[in-house]
Amino acid sequence: MPSVRVTLWNEYVHERTNPDVARIYPEGIHSALKEALLRHGNVEVRTATLAEPEHGLTEEVLRQTDVLTWWGHAAHDDVRDDIIARVHARVLEGMGLIVLHSGHWSKLFKRVMGTSCALCWREAGERERVWVVDPGHPIANGVDHCIELEQSEMYGEPFGIPTPDDIVFISWFQGGEVFRGGCTWRRGSGRVFYFSPGHESYPIYHNPQIQRVIANAVQWAAPQGRAANTPRNTPVESALEPIIARGPSVHDAHGTLTR
Amino acid sequence: MPSVRVTLWNEYVHERTNPDVARIYPEGIHSALKEALLRHGNVEVRTATLAEPEHGLTEEVLRQTDVLTWWGHAAHDDVRDDIIARVHARVLEGMGLIVLHSGHWSKLFKRVMGTSCALCWREAGERERVWVVDPGHPIANGVDHCIELEQSEMYGEPFGIPTPDDIVFISWFQGGEVFRGGCTWRRGSGRVFYFSPGHESYPIYHNPQIQRVIANAVQWAAPQGRAANTPRNTPVESALEPIIARGPSVHDAHGTLTR
Amino acid sequence: MPSVRVTLWNEYVHERTNPDVARIYPEGIHSALKEALLRHGNVEVRTATLAEPEHGLTEEVLRQTDVLTWWGHAAHDDVRDDIIARVHARVLEGMGLIVLHSGHWSKLFKRVMGTSCALCWREAGERERVWVVDPGHPIANGVDHCIELEQSEMYGEPFGIPTPDDIVFISWFQGGEVFRGGCTWRRGSGRVFYFSPGHESYPIYHNPQIQRVIANAVQWAAPQGRAANTPRNTPVESALEPIIARGPSVHDAHGTLTR
Amino acid sequence: MPSVRVTLWNEYVHERTNPDVARIYPEGIHSALKEALLRHGNVEVRTATLAEPEHGLTEEVLRQTDVLTWWGHAAHDDVRDDIIARVHARVLEGMGLIVLHSGHWSKLFKRVMGTSCALCWREAGERERVWVVDPGHPIANGVDHCIELEQSEMYGEPFGIPTPDDIVFISWFQGGEVFRGGCTWRRGSGRVFYFSPGHESYPIYHNPQIQRVIANAVQWAAPQGRAANTPRNTPVESALEPIIARGPSVHDAHGTLTR
Repeated sequence: MPSVRVTLWNEYVHERTNPDVARIYPEGIHSALKEALLRHGNVEVRTATLAEPEHGLTEEVLRQTDVLTWWGHAAHDDVRDDIIARVHARVLEGMGLIVLHSGHWSKLFKRVMGTSCALCWREAGERERVWVVDPGHPIANGVDHCIELEQSEMYGEPFGIPTPDDIVFISWFQGGEVFRGGCTWRRGSGRVFYFSPGHESYPIYHNPQIQRVIANAVQWAAPQGRAANTPRNTPVESALEPIIARGPSVHDAHGTLTR
Repeated sequence: MPSVRVTLWNEYVHERTNPDVARIYPEGIHSALKEALLRHGNVEVRTATLAEPEHGLTEEVLRQTDVLTWWGHAAHDDVRDDIIARVHARVLEGMGLIVLHSGHWSKLFKRVMGTSCALCWREAGERERVWVVDPGHPIANGVDHCIELEQSEMYGEPFGIPTPDDIVFISWFQGGEVFRGGCTWRRGSGRVFYFSPGHESYPIYHNPQIQRVIANAVQWAAPQGRAANTPRNTPVESALEPIIARGPSVHDAHGTLTR
Repeated sequence: MPSVRVTLWNEYVHERTNPDVARIYPEGIHSALKEALLRHGNVEVRTATLAEPEHGLTEEVLRQTDVLTWWGHAAHDDVRDDIIARVHARVLEGMGLIVLHSGHWSKLFKRVMGTSCALCWREAGERERVWVVDPGHPIANGVDHCIELEQSEMYGEPFGIPTPDDIVFISWFQGGEVFRGGCTWRRGSGRVFYFSPGHESYPIYHNPQIQRVIANAVQWAAPQGRAANTPRNTPVESALEPIIARGPSVHDAHGTLTR
Repeated sequence: MPSVRVTLWNEYVHERTNPDVARIYPEGIHSALKEALLRHGNVEVRTATLAEPEHGLTEEVLRQTDVLTWWGHAAHDDVRDDIIARVHARVLEGMGLIVLHSGHWSKLFKRVMGTSCALCWREAGERERVWVVDPGHPIANGVDHCIELEQSEMYGEPFGIPTPDDIVFISWFQGGEVFRGGCTWRRGSGRVFYFSPGHESYPIYHNPQIQRVIANAVQWAAPQGRAANTPRNTPVESALEPIIARGPSVHDAHGTLTR
């Protein structure tokens, strides 16, 4: 089984501007995730950040990426639209995408979902329990009945997402809310996983169970089949059953739409 | 039961430029659909076309629209991005959306789906059978086992859509293909239905069974609940369970993200 | 819009054997639900209980039932298998089914789901909040962001159900659990809704918001299309496209399987 | 990656009673499938048939089975109910299940689906094309756009199944029908795949593309996580958040339901 080529994308702003965050992730959230993934194995990991040319997401990098993870919060609007379009296209071709925490509000996630991706929130350092509701799912493999996070940001319903294909985790919050915090979708040939824990004020990505979920998700999201997103004209003479064209047309002899 | 306020949007290009199409729909596809919907009842119908100011889709019009239908083919790129964003936002709020035939390739449908919406196609006037695969679905109410269309454009798989919530119709084509031609999704509080028959070279929207499907879909797509897409901060002091804020923060005292 | 013919089925055991339950529902849970549904209107309601001949669910009664609700707890095993098969068949034909609270463990629900329907539970009179996660869903119509139940039985994940078509409600419990307590499925032409609140030790079915949900669900579950569950042989001579039979066969000339 | 332990279950009737079938599968369908799976690798294969004690599906065999395939046609009623219950329980625990062709009408499949599993059919040796509608799905890996079967039994819609999680294949038939012939579901922790091609009158299981699909499905259906189907009482004193029991009860001090 070949190792999965992962690119960890991080906005990398709060780790450099907010001393509390810097203390938890001195080298950035991406570096903490990189270490964690390498420990779980069967991956090759590179990182990319907002400040790099093309945000570190060149055509070349994306072509060599099986699974992309996305963390952003303070600078969603600074991400270039053309790079988003490029990443989106690669997802449809089959690249896996794992969107983390405040990445729910990124241009990329909204575009891939086609919905608001809005939610309720409260930053109070309250207790969260991430419950496994689908124990047979590979992303929940090796995870306890629930992951307890002593301090977390509350994300609450209603969450403006399309019906997920699978809901793997649902979170409980001390202040009284619930949240569908671990969901999957298919987009084109690409697999998408959203995972809500990971507020930068708390050391959530140092939690071994959280790391395990992300490592599982990386394996799950790796491409499985082939891409199929090109519109194709199938000429009459190559129809599988013999047919004869009849009736009027809005296309010319070359199949081009006339106007 | 109040009547459903429908706006029929039509690009209205080929009916004015292609004599074959003009013969079938002398006053435009929208006019044919309007007559059909009025015959089925429980609707108020208005129409809107590309050439009108704001494509006929002002804030005012959309506010008074329960269900919007969308037909376009030759001029997808001429639709203004800001109008698309406006329509998209109304769908998330709860407005129903029915996308017809070549509307699969519209900016609007691609944006709402988040996928390529690509497909295979062939314009040969071949036979199509639209099979009901979900006879208990309200959109299939009163429709025979299959709708036979003597001449149709072939649309074939793979169709670049997300997993539908419901597949109501699957089409068979004489040339050997199949197509998921009648599918539903939820987007925010809005219901979306895509229905593939309706090529402008053939009199498909004059078929009573096709009209019945669209009339059913209009009733099905009418708003059912409330919109819920505004991100909301839930302050600590109004948490449902009493909690006390603790730990560091990336927000200031007013809940605004610092950077 | 014709009124929906509802049959409220109740085991009706604990209301007669447990004084605490009798105090809350002196005439049975079914009577409390009947009053509530009649108040919301557009229904004809009858009731049926375990002790009646054929549990009150004769062929005749079921034929005249659009939506059946099911409450049971202490006597699941006393329900006759042939009656379960009869109810199941009617669901596939299009009758709506609303399974309430401990009905999750009934023969009927397990049979309709095809899964264990198991869950975690605790009877401690703790606080429950039933969150609306799908505000645009007709079953959530008129319901607040969440329904607060001061005393409830905890039902927790993992809940042994198939992937729901829609999740309308997710519950939060004071003791730390979450639960997918309001889910829908399609089975044949029938619509199924499971709603978890309703423990008999607490006056939950007297809560107006809970009543509203059940009244909404009754309207939502009413039959929408036609039944389609009979296996049918389509003889060669009546194929839609002309074909000629060729090759060997395991059926005789009358289409009967040989052995 | 450990090899997947597969048990191929076959009714094994028509291969011994019908000379046409015997010519195609002289040692039974199970033997043909066994050879094919071994060629694709990463499996250990055993077979089991109706005539064996306990139909070859002892507790021991099932415990050592990761994925079970099921083929039956002439003798569905001869399968013992207790064996079906045993197999069903193993699926919920996580064993994969692949139901082939006429197995759609088996006790097992109906029980696992909770629906009629009925369909339309015609045995005329007509042409079938099995279209890939989900090219990114692992079960479609390495399969062409469509698999052409020169002779096949027609299976047509409506097919009495619950909404599939994924539809991987849809079939086209020469006589004019379509069929959702390759579908997946989750049941408990088990993955289920139904694949319609495989009528015993034609050499369909000798087709390399059909073999490829079944080999892919075996890998896809292998258990991925843990089983979770035991109802569990969570006593008050071990609640994750400290709570105090209050209010009346229908359980005694040991958590047993009173009546």
